[in-house]
Amino acid sequence: MTVTSGTLDAVLQNVDANLDTSVSSLFEILRIPSISTQPAHAADCRKAAAWMQQALENLGMTATLRDVHWAAPGHPMVVGHDAAAEGKDERPHVLFYGHYDVQPTDPETLWNAPPFDPRLIEDASGRKVIVARGASDDKGQVMTFLEACRAWKDVTGSLPVRVSVLLEGEEECGGANLYPFLKENVAELKADVVLVCDTSMADRNTPGITTSLRGMMAEEVVIQCASHDLHSGLYGNAAANPIAVLCQALATLRTADGGVTLPGFYDGIREPAAATRAQWSHLFPDDASLLHEAGLAIAAGEKGYSAIEQTWCRPSCEINGISGGYEGEGFKTVLPAKAMAKVSFRLVPGQDPDRIRETFRAHIRAALPQDATVTFTAHGGSPGFEVSRDSRFLGLALKALSDEWGVPAATVGSGGSIPVAGEVRDALGLDALMIGFAQNDDRIHSPNEQYGLDSFHKGIRSWVRVLAALADAG
Amino acid sequence: MTVTSGTLDAVLQNVDANLDTSVSSLFEILRIPSISTQPAHAADCRKAAAWMQQALENLGMTATLRDVHWAAPGHPMVVGHDAAAEGKDERPHVLFYGHYDVQPTDPETLWNAPPFDPRLIEDASGRKVIVARGASDDKGQVMTFLEACRAWKDVTGSLPVRVSVLLEGEEECGGANLYPFLKENVAELKADVVLVCDTSMADRNTPGITTSLRGMMAEEVVIQCASHDLHSGLYGNAAANPIAVLCQALATLRTADGGVTLPGFYDGIREPAAATRAQWSHLFPDDASLLHEAGLAIAAGEKGYSAIEQTWCRPSCEINGISGGYEGEGFKTVLPAKAMAKVSFRLVPGQDPDRIRETFRAHIRAALPQDATVTFTAHGGSPGFEVSRDSRFLGLALKALSDEWGVPAATVGSGGSIPVAGEVRDALGLDALMIGFAQNDDRIHSPNEQYGLDSFHKGIRSWVRVLAALADAG
Repeated sequence: MTVTSGTLDAVLQNVDANLDTSVSSLFEILRIPSISTQPAHAADCRKAAAWMQQALENLGMTATLRDVHWAAPGHPMVVGHDAAAEGKDERPHVLFYGHYDVQPTDPETLWNAPPFDPRLIEDASGRKVIVARGASDDKGQVMTFLEACRAWKDVTGSLPVRVSVLLEGEEECGGANLYPFLKENVAELKADVVLVCDTSMADRNTPGITTSLRGMMAEEVVIQCASHDLHSGLYGNAAANPIAVLCQALATLRTADGGVTLPGFYDGIREPAAATRAQWSHLFPDDASLLHEAGLAIAAGEKGYSAIEQTWCRPSCEINGISGGYEGEGFKTVLPAKAMAKVSFRLVPGQDPDRIRETFRAHIRAALPQDATVTFTAHGGSPGFEVSRDSRFLGLALKALSDEWGVPAATVGSGGSIPVAGEVRDALGLDALMIGFAQNDDRIHSPNEQYGLDSFHKGIRSWVRVLAALADAG
Repeated sequence: MTVTSGTLDAVLQNVDANLDTSVSSLFEILRIPSISTQPAHAADCRKAAAWMQQALENLGMTATLRDVHWAAPGHPMVVGHDAAAEGKDERPHVLFYGHYDVQPTDPETLWNAPPFDPRLIEDASGRKVIVARGASDDKGQVMTFLEACRAWKDVTGSLPVRVSVLLEGEEECGGANLYPFLKENVAELKADVVLVCDTSMADRNTPGITTSLRGMMAEEVVIQCASHDLHSGLYGNAAANPIAVLCQALATLRTADGGVTLPGFYDGIREPAAATRAQWSHLFPDDASLLHEAGLAIAAGEKGYSAIEQTWCRPSCEINGISGGYEGEGFKTVLPAKAMAKVSFRLVPGQDPDRIRETFRAHIRAALPQDATVTFTAHGGSPGFEVSRDSRFLGLALKALSDEWGVPAATVGSGGSIPVAGEVRDALGLDALMIGFAQNDDRIHSPNEQYGLDSFHKGIRSWVRVLAALADAG
């Protein structure tokens, strides 16, 4: 073993001793409202990037803010290299990826405290949790890695492997600049493996490495019928209602059995292996075990697949937003001119986002009355992804996680989309190990997002161990 | 004839000479933002009521503000009686009805000028129009009647018939207080006929008396699936999506042929008489002649009925608002906990609003997954209405309108719901003559609502003539 157990223990003890300082540091970045999809927060995104740049420099890295220009909104990348990462060195070279941007906070009224005023509180079960937008997704998770590096540097003066860091500011708003940025900087960013911290544990107590991810194709649809809002008494029945047209078009995207109706939607998809299904059914013995935290019990997707299969390895279609007519208090008998929906498809390996976008648009167009019009806005697309099972880093990382948590680490799927995994494979030819410490009840993207103090603490310790273990792959 | 033609001409000349003053007076009341459905405007509603009370007193009437207490929001009624209306008098007694409340103004961004800053402008065709919320519905129309009374008083010192006035402040928000108010004040409000000014011309140049009205039953529906908003990656497919459930429930309210699917929906409805259909097809020779102003050409309702039949004599179901998930700029991959729709049914005589409300709620409940819940909020209900064709006042009023406009006045239907017509019949046993001067392109309930200066001017003149004509019914 490249790293002695005495050294490893010393670094882990440093993590434990400095937890309060680590939390304070996380709170600093959580206070910056870096909502990437809202133009009003562009300056906050840059401020968060600058904070991260400083954090990397504090670790002794050379760090730069890098403007991106291929697509809007153009929030900068943060790139850092540890000194050893740039010179000649036999040790493995890891590129860590995370993102400093966060989701919007609406509806604000459902937050128990302001979303950018982080708090450490005890939940009903007595567990200590950090509550803030970005606590879990992804600022808290990014900080587990940076604090692990800090502990290594504090104790040994160096890192056990060569480390570069890439932090993105557009993960929550399409991330169209990441791939061209990777392509333009292949020489600089080429490492041996990519580490991503943006996923969840396999379950509350079982660490996991996510080896499959769903991709996503998202569209905004605006249907217009009349040229202006009408009185539903004067025109109702005779004038086409764009909300009704939209509901009709959206209602026919799914069959009664939960399948998606777009032609060719399931072409090219592989069924999960029996062993994988067995492992997952051990983690989630029934549908309620996944859904109970959401207050639900019955899987709503395709019949014949368990709830966890529906989210980890089956594609889906979700309406993420809908709007039209009068939405305020009371009633208004308007027959609106327009109606809008935001629709996303989670994709699995084998599905082509571009082709599905076209079939979706054709489906909507086919539902339009002759005198209605539709406008589509694309909101990003990425295919599903699977990690190669024979990666020489995968086994080492699983072992390190098992050591920290005291139970065998699992390989799991994720229903979420982390485009970076596919993009680093395409642009840099690298596998990505997706290791995260979030929990399903962390309410990411929702009001009162949280990150367990245990997730944060053991997350830092986990990275300390993973960095040590990867040194053995040299 | 009770009124001499010389007197009538003098009063009409007074109207012409005072038009500028009449417009100024209208502008005063248009500046009060009396949006009855929004609690924040409750004080504005009371201010508008007080303005109307003063206007009636300026006409020499005794006028009172009358609090209503049967239902929220409780905006006061304004009741005025001309001195002659209260004593013994052989002349017919008319009760004029209008409303001083207005619809909300959203979306504000589509108004070319602030909605409560009335302007007299020329439209693209050179026609002078008054633009403001309430210009047409109903403040402008109310003022046609009050200005006609003013002219009669100016010239003759009295009115040719006995006049009482009832102005409501909740017509745009359910109007639940009107019926109990009528019932409680039968002795005071009992007249010979009710005059209502809240409808449109038969077409641009043809005056009309609306003899049939659609009623309305409106519901707000909130569907909840998960207990809180979820991440569509982590739960999408497996967790029920309330927007999708709502779309499914709403999309199945109509058949492909435009009919409403609720069981028994069409029970008790009479087909329009052949003569009526012929008269209406003369006014609207094809569907586009009704729909072109809305930028549409194709009737969206039941096949087998023309666009004007679909609005004037066929019931409909409209989605007036829908909301759920992320509606802002950009994209958010949320799987929301709740989705909301506002749905209204326009009803024709023979349909029972209460029974249709129950079948609608049953339809929605049947579409729910087992672990979803629904909350319904009723927003008023009133049956459809038809005026008795043998009213002794109807022929006199038609003749007076024909005299003013130079073409035969028509009896028409209206797709809108004016509950007062049915309620005065039930409570006071009176027929209502619905005479209005709005145009289909007045954008009532929409941004840039307008009232033609010609509608206003000839509307005042029309009431001068109608009051004279009704004197002959004594």
